[in-house]
Amino acid sequence: MFRSELAQQLRVDSVRASTAAGSGHPTSSMSAADLMAVLLDGHLRLDFSRPDHPANDHLIFSKGHASPLQYAAFKAVGAVEDDELLTFRAFGSRLEGHPTPVLPWVDVATGSLGQGLPVGVGLALAGKRLDRLPYRVWVLCGDSEMAEGSVWEALEHAGHEQLDNLIALVDVNRLGQTGPTMHGWDLSSYAARAQAAGWRTLEIDGHDLDEIESALAEAERGDGRPVMILAATQKGKGVAEVADKPGFHGKPLAHAEEAIAELGGLRDLRVKPVAPEDAAPHAFDTGNTGLPAYEEGTELATRKAYGQALAALGDRRGDVVAMDGEVSNSTFAELFRDAHPDRYFEMYIAEQQLIAAAVGMQVRGWCAFASTFAAFLSRAYDFVRMAAISRADLRLMGSHAGVAIGEDGPSQMALEDLAAFRAVHGSTVLYPCDANQTAHLVAAMADQPGISYLRTSRGAMPVIYPPDEEFPIGGAKVVRDGADVTLVGAGVTLHEALKAADLLAHEGIGARVIDLYSVKPVDTATLRQAAKETAGLVTAEDHWPEGGLGEAVLSALAEDPVPVRRLAVHEMPGSGKPAELLGQARIDATAIAEKARELVP
Amino acid sequence: MFRSELAQQLRVDSVRASTAAGSGHPTSSMSAADLMAVLLDGHLRLDFSRPDHPANDHLIFSKGHASPLQYAAFKAVGAVEDDELLTFRAFGSRLEGHPTPVLPWVDVATGSLGQGLPVGVGLALAGKRLDRLPYRVWVLCGDSEMAEGSVWEALEHAGHEQLDNLIALVDVNRLGQTGPTMHGWDLSSYAARAQAAGWRTLEIDGHDLDEIESALAEAERGDGRPVMILAATQKGKGVAEVADKPGFHGKPLAHAEEAIAELGGLRDLRVKPVAPEDAAPHAFDTGNTGLPAYEEGTELATRKAYGQALAALGDRRGDVVAMDGEVSNSTFAELFRDAHPDRYFEMYIAEQQLIAAAVGMQVRGWCAFASTFAAFLSRAYDFVRMAAISRADLRLMGSHAGVAIGEDGPSQMALEDLAAFRAVHGSTVLYPCDANQTAHLVAAMADQPGISYLRTSRGAMPVIYPPDEEFPIGGAKVVRDGADVTLVGAGVTLHEALKAADLLAHEGIGARVIDLYSVKPVDTATLRQAAKETAGLVTAEDHWPEGGLGEAVLSALAEDPVPVRRLAVHEMPGSGKPAELLGQARIDATAIAEKARELVP
Repeated sequence: MFRSELAQQLRVDSVRASTAAGSGHPTSSMSAADLMAVLLDGHLRLDFSRPDHPANDHLIFSKGHASPLQYAAFKAVGAVEDDELLTFRAFGSRLEGHPTPVLPWVDVATGSLGQGLPVGVGLALAGKRLDRLPYRVWVLCGDSEMAEGSVWEALEHAGHEQLDNLIALVDVNRLGQTGPTMHGWDLSSYAARAQAAGWRTLEIDGHDLDEIESALAEAERGDGRPVMILAATQKGKGVAEVADKPGFHGKPLAHAEEAIAELGGLRDLRVKPVAPEDAAPHAFDTGNTGLPAYEEGTELATRKAYGQALAALGDRRGDVVAMDGEVSNSTFAELFRDAHPDRYFEMYIAEQQLIAAAVGMQVRGWCAFASTFAAFLSRAYDFVRMAAISRADLRLMGSHAGVAIGEDGPSQMALEDLAAFRAVHGSTVLYPCDANQTAHLVAAMADQPGISYLRTSRGAMPVIYPPDEEFPIGGAKVVRDGADVTLVGAGVTLHEALKAADLLAHEGIGARVIDLYSVKPVDTATLRQAAKETAGLVTAEDHWPEGGLGEAVLSALAEDPVPVRRLAVHEMPGSGKPAELLGQARIDATAIAEKARELVP
Repeated sequence: MFRSELAQQLRVDSVRASTAAGSGHPTSSMSAADLMAVLLDGHLRLDFSRPDHPANDHLIFSKGHASPLQYAAFKAVGAVEDDELLTFRAFGSRLEGHPTPVLPWVDVATGSLGQGLPVGVGLALAGKRLDRLPYRVWVLCGDSEMAEGSVWEALEHAGHEQLDNLIALVDVNRLGQTGPTMHGWDLSSYAARAQAAGWRTLEIDGHDLDEIESALAEAERGDGRPVMILAATQKGKGVAEVADKPGFHGKPLAHAEEAIAELGGLRDLRVKPVAPEDAAPHAFDTGNTGLPAYEEGTELATRKAYGQALAALGDRRGDVVAMDGEVSNSTFAELFRDAHPDRYFEMYIAEQQLIAAAVGMQVRGWCAFASTFAAFLSRAYDFVRMAAISRADLRLMGSHAGVAIGEDGPSQMALEDLAAFRAVHGSTVLYPCDANQTAHLVAAMADQPGISYLRTSRGAMPVIYPPDEEFPIGGAKVVRDGADVTLVGAGVTLHEALKAADLLAHEGIGARVIDLYSVKPVDTATLRQAAKETAGLVTAEDHWPEGGLGEAVLSALAEDPVPVRRLAVHEMPGSGKPAELLGQARIDATAIAEKARELVP
């Protein structure tokens, strides 16, 4: 009786919140209200007064548009008051249209479908292998979002990793935004897919409180398999005008008063979830390994320096964890894997799950580094976008950037990554040119809030900095002084710029060379000083012309501009030797020197 | 005997090509050589001398790193000579590290795993529902790439659409780049997943030519289900030094001479694939509907104008097809669906498959428009990146851009899309501010090569242009003249800029207002003229500060710069009314006028 009353309250409050807002998704909330009522009353082990309790269960609304239900649940547990509930979607309210971590009980932002379950995999992995705590991860999924490939990546991984602390509640209300889903109420079609991936499945009537109780209790009896509860529900359940009818997605009810009456009117029930047990997370042993140091003049690929630095950092810091998309012998994440196997995660060729796992682990405070080819991080761009909305601290490494990779051809060349990552809110974009710089930047990333991205190169490059040189995020290095013209590069083009400066020196032209290793934030002061003291700037980047290093420089100088000549990759490259492709793209020393001459009076 | 000899030739030529190149993936080629030999000899119906033959079968190497095998096959059918084969991966060669359509028999670029099968779904849909021709689509998949969610999106769709003209050959060699795959040689684990999605599966020994023959013949007897042939193979099959051993991924063989001898030495067999039947593709009836015209001063959302224009265009042009990611009542692609149901495809919430379907259809010359929320196109960014390498002509529409959407919150706001799409090679980025402009740009996109992106807005905006105004791609409109300062906007900020110009006019400041509807290519001449004739430019965009309209303007002026003040979204927005969020982001008329005053002497 209490649970059915609670469920009706969740429905009523979902209706009230969306009516107050004038928008939102009440019918998508009403279908899952019974599931939520039973979960809150006896199954979810979460102390809402201590959202950072390490042993708390986690509850993710992968169907983030059911935010009215989530907020109604927060009210039912006493975390949110009724007057705040009615600020839903209002300017300045914490109760945003889709949930975000501005609310302390929301781990990650959702609203882009198919992301909650892969993030749940990351949290469940953290529970099993890092925190080593018995918390469970409950993920409320919609049936429409099961069409997202990322959901199937999550199914594969959870099954493979035997995450029986992960429970997906799938609200099969059969109606998407525009019409019926592919599978309607055919629960067995979902079950067959999940079972094939190693999941245990339970098919229930999602409005039968006893069936829900049995399923949740059964799910809690872990048997080494993740659990998917497939609940047949009605969208808009409880209000005849809208129940199981198309055309009511994402709309407040037309007759809210009558609907609330039909649902039995207002209630003010409170439910107290089970308290989590008192337990502390596991801590890994640490050592005193310093950052690797490289002798000037030796040659090493920055991707290899990444692996070496990360392995060393992992020794000093027990909170550092790493994962890779089945290319760890290319990114050299394998060096971390070999040094710290307990803190390494093989995510196979599933970049969305790779990023989502890192997002899930950082929810629990782990300092997660994720790596793959820079080109393939584009596969997870929506996950990175959402991670920024989740206020996630995330460290990404993309290797094999640009035409400089050579023979593998354009499918493996990241040429848009600087633009894509610069356009992530609050991001940091780093692009080292030598091994010592790489090591320092890897260490800096561990302490950097938000999403930081390190672009590394395939080929070996000479070490030009001493091991004790410092590289603050937001800084730049004047690696050669000169008063006539300024050359700006980073990574492989920094070395080309240095060669260009040599060429120009022979002609009596003094070229200043700036290493713009921090593409975002950018060192405006150093650039402006160069703008003031030389005739102009030449930028060179192994990237398309848009959104990368060149435009970062233009932005820094926008209000007080000087002439800037920009070199970047303009034509679609093919295969070839790195030097051939740098030359063809006109981002090599010859091209840089030529542009520089145009600027010298 | 011929087939086994042919298979050995394919292996030998894969070894020779990668040895000549000094890089490449011979072992990944050798595992699939028997599959390819049987396919070429009697099953593939493809006239290599007429790559544009409408009834040709299609062959996609989803495991693009097996390019040596693909090129060896092209040699075996006489399409490529031996001396060209040995230019593999050399600078200027058509035989790039991973296949691209610079070769006429390659439909799409591969090399980013998990894309070939979803593109194959698009081609198979075209065969069934557009061309209405009996061609088959053969996709060679690797087992590692089955971990990609996009593969499962393809499985879902192909099963749902009953594409029995689609045949996936999965080369289960059990070894990925760094180690064993998740499922090894457990063919049944793949079969269970595919069967759950409605596929017919056949499990075979991938080195038994009779089993392969039976499977291909069986697959050709369509029964309404797509077919997955799961072939257990050995990576490096045929050469004991590398066969079924880890550590040899992506490396030429160390002892190529001995390997070739072990494989029976050089051969020069030729195989002639079956000729396709002579048949012409279906053509849809057309009418004379003109573009919709809107009266100045009326209000309409540009997303709605998109749907109306696309429906009209579809009447005039029978080659126009459309698809959407289950939000067609928001993007108004539903207007096309209702007008042209035969040419509309519901792709559900699977954005990777959405883009891949469009890519597949344009291979056959269909003019494909794909739409969803602009924010969710980021889910398919890698597919768009690869589409550019595929030289695909693709029309994308992203709705609900920017903070101007209001209450739904940041997960639904595209704020990085201009940056992401500008950084796609050869792309066109359009951002209309009224309904007539939208209609003209939709029509222009149909004739535009490469990838064009239309950013539309959620809210209604006033029509400011007459219906007969023209909007060339690469142009801009001076919508208000003025000699003191220039305001540059597009979409919602164009209207704010007009209001700002009104505010400034009251103060005696003459503001020129430029509508930068073509963000890429950008109208450098109009911007430079404004730079010359006014004190400076203010740009305003409903987008993060990086890579969007502001930086497009800076790039246009880079070599001959003037002061530019840029307004963009700097802080993470929440929910609220559009006007509240535009004000908070300081991209509204008030903020624009304020910035403009800073520039006026």
